[in-house]
Amino acid sequence: MLGAIEAGGTKFVCAVADEDFNIIDRVSFPTTIPSEACSNVLQFFDQYDLKSIGIGSFGPIEVDINSLKYGFVTDTPKKYWSNFNFVGTMKKRYDIPIFWTTDVNAAAYGEKIRGAAIDSKSCLYLTAGTGIGGGMIINDQILEGFSHPEMGHILVRKHENDPFVGACPFHKDCLEGMASGKAIEERFNKKGNELSESDSFWEIEANYIAQALMTYTLTLRPEKMILGGGVMAQDHLFHSIRSQFEKLLSGYVSTPDLTSYIVSPGLKGDAGIVGALLFVFVQKDRFLSF
Amino acid sequence: MLGAIEAGGTKFVCAVADEDFNIIDRVSFPTTIPSEACSNVLQFFDQYDLKSIGIGSFGPIEVDINSLKYGFVTDTPKKYWSNFNFVGTMKKRYDIPIFWTTDVNAAAYGEKIRGAAIDSKSCLYLTAGTGIGGGMIINDQILEGFSHPEMGHILVRKHENDPFVGACPFHKDCLEGMASGKAIEERFNKKGNELSESDSFWEIEANYIAQALMTYTLTLRPEKMILGGGVMAQDHLFHSIRSQFEKLLSGYVSTPDLTSYIVSPGLKGDAGIVGALLFVFVQKDRFLSF
Ligand SMILES: Nc1ncnc2c1ncn2[C@@H]1O[C@H](COP(=O)(O)OP(=O)(O)O)[C@@H](O)[C@H]1O
Ligand SMILES: Nc1ncnc2c1ncn2[C@@H]1O[C@H](COP(=O)(O)OP(=O)(O)O)[C@@H](O)[C@H]1O
Ligand SMILES: [Zn+2]
Ligand SMILES: [Zn+2]
Repeated sequence: MLGAIEAGGTKFVCAVADEDFNIIDRVSFPTTIPSEACSNVLQFFDQYDLKSIGIGSFGPIEVDINSLKYGFVTDTPKKYWSNFNFVGTMKKRYDIPIFWTTDVNAAAYGEKIRGAAIDSKSCLYLTAGTGIGGGMIINDQILEGFSHPEMGHILVRKHENDPFVGACPFHKDCLEGMASGKAIEERFNKKGNELSESDSFWEIEANYIAQALMTYTLTLRPEKMILGGGVMAQDHLFHSIRSQFEKLLSGYVSTPDLTSYIVSPGLKGDAGIVGALLFVFVQKDRFLSF
Repeated sequence: MLGAIEAGGTKFVCAVADEDFNIIDRVSFPTTIPSEACSNVLQFFDQYDLKSIGIGSFGPIEVDINSLKYGFVTDTPKKYWSNFNFVGTMKKRYDIPIFWTTDVNAAAYGEKIRGAAIDSKSCLYLTAGTGIGGGMIINDQILEGFSHPEMGHILVRKHENDPFVGACPFHKDCLEGMASGKAIEERFNKKGNELSESDSFWEIEANYIAQALMTYTLTLRPEKMILGGGVMAQDHLFHSIRSQFEKLLSGYVSTPDLTSYIVSPGLKGDAGIVGALLFVFVQKDRFLSF
């Protein structure tokens, strides 16, 4: 059996699957404090004879194999999670290969191997949820360098009709600061799902996302860009994002047809957990399996 | 012998090297019209018995091996070069492997294998010359997806003290539109090298570049970022770019020490031509060698 954890900012999902990646059992619980979350994880996995565990975790996390902090959650604003040794805790209980990267890298990988990007050589996955984050897969490899990307914090141009100062504790009005679920809540004192579909704000939301997709297109040249996360439950955003993206890019570079270039996840909400299961496929030297 | 062409917007450089990559002979001439430039190229290469030719070309260019236009310069504003079959022209004369990518990808590759990034696993090369362009190398592979990156055209925030409307024919005030050599010339009616080092504009120029480096850092996570091109001859820019970069990023992600993270080219002006020579090392399936 293969094990996987999608450790999200709001909730954990754990799953076990057979060697054909059919999910046999799964469980989900809120992301409270590390000790509680981990005892839930262990209780679930203890029932099975696992060969490996793939983890896609909220970040920032340490992915440098040569760091003493490899496998740790690092400087998260999430209480009690900073400096938590996630991989080490798992490793202590299960002496099997552990695959470790961010939740968005996991989702990007899931979409690449089994989802919307199955026929593409590369894809980008962007989640607009409580925060904003992105992952990129090229030729079945996860894009990482000095560390993992933090694509949600790129600078955007403030929309002329948007007086909001921004919600990012680091950059105020970066993409996440202006367009995340948290930014919407701070701006309106209510959640995104409580806004009417016809609210003029959605045009502004789509503008920020379109700006970001233009930047990702020009720097990363993915064959597909997949948008997930709670905020993207606003289906009508896709239309507006595509048309604003087209206007911004002004035909400077060619892209696939926009309806097949900017899409929703093929695996729906399961991209992350499926991706974490599929990590056993990633080239071995990409992961520490100590 | 190995051959290489760096086809820049202003000038061509051709070189031949021995199998140890020592340059034996080189020639340079202005980028006039295709027929003239190519006859200069052929005249130079005809003197040698070449095993391969690497080409780093100004763009946009077609790099999709499955396209009928593979090896062409595509929609460049450069007169007479649009739709020029560069690889085909070389191939007709020399029936040897031809390696083909952008001038900035070539420079990035040169810097990675023989230059400032020799000890890094990845690097980004950004040129601020007549235009702005960037290339990225990860684990000795060139980053390309749907096509090659066009990093010079990402959106930047207009600096509050900069009234210039922008020089990019596609986006007006994108990075290239605000910070390229051409933008400086249009803004001041004189060239960058005619501005005093103490001109307050340089702080604005550095701001635009720092914004771009923040975006590249968060999306690509290179281990090193190398800045070349005519405008970067203004050495004092490095200091200002680093300090504005630091302020913008606000410590959100860790990077190498900035003096070793944001650097000038190790190969000086030879990054492109050396990179094009070294293309024989790039994994075969990355290039068409028809
Ligand atoms: N239908 C909706 N429309 C707009 N925003 C929504 C909707 N549903 C959830 N959200 C917002 O999405 C965020 C949660 O995103 P989600 O991807 O589910 O979780 P997380 O990012 O915490 O892992 C919250 O800020 C929530 O307000
Ligand atoms: N010392 C300098 N200071 C500022 N700008 C310069 C300097 N030297 C050249 N430039 C500008 O750089 C551009 C040429 O860049 P370069 O990289 O040499 O060529 P290209 O981009 O055409 O291949 C021109 O716009 C020129 O005005
Ligand atoms: Zn931010
Ligand atoms: Zn532009």
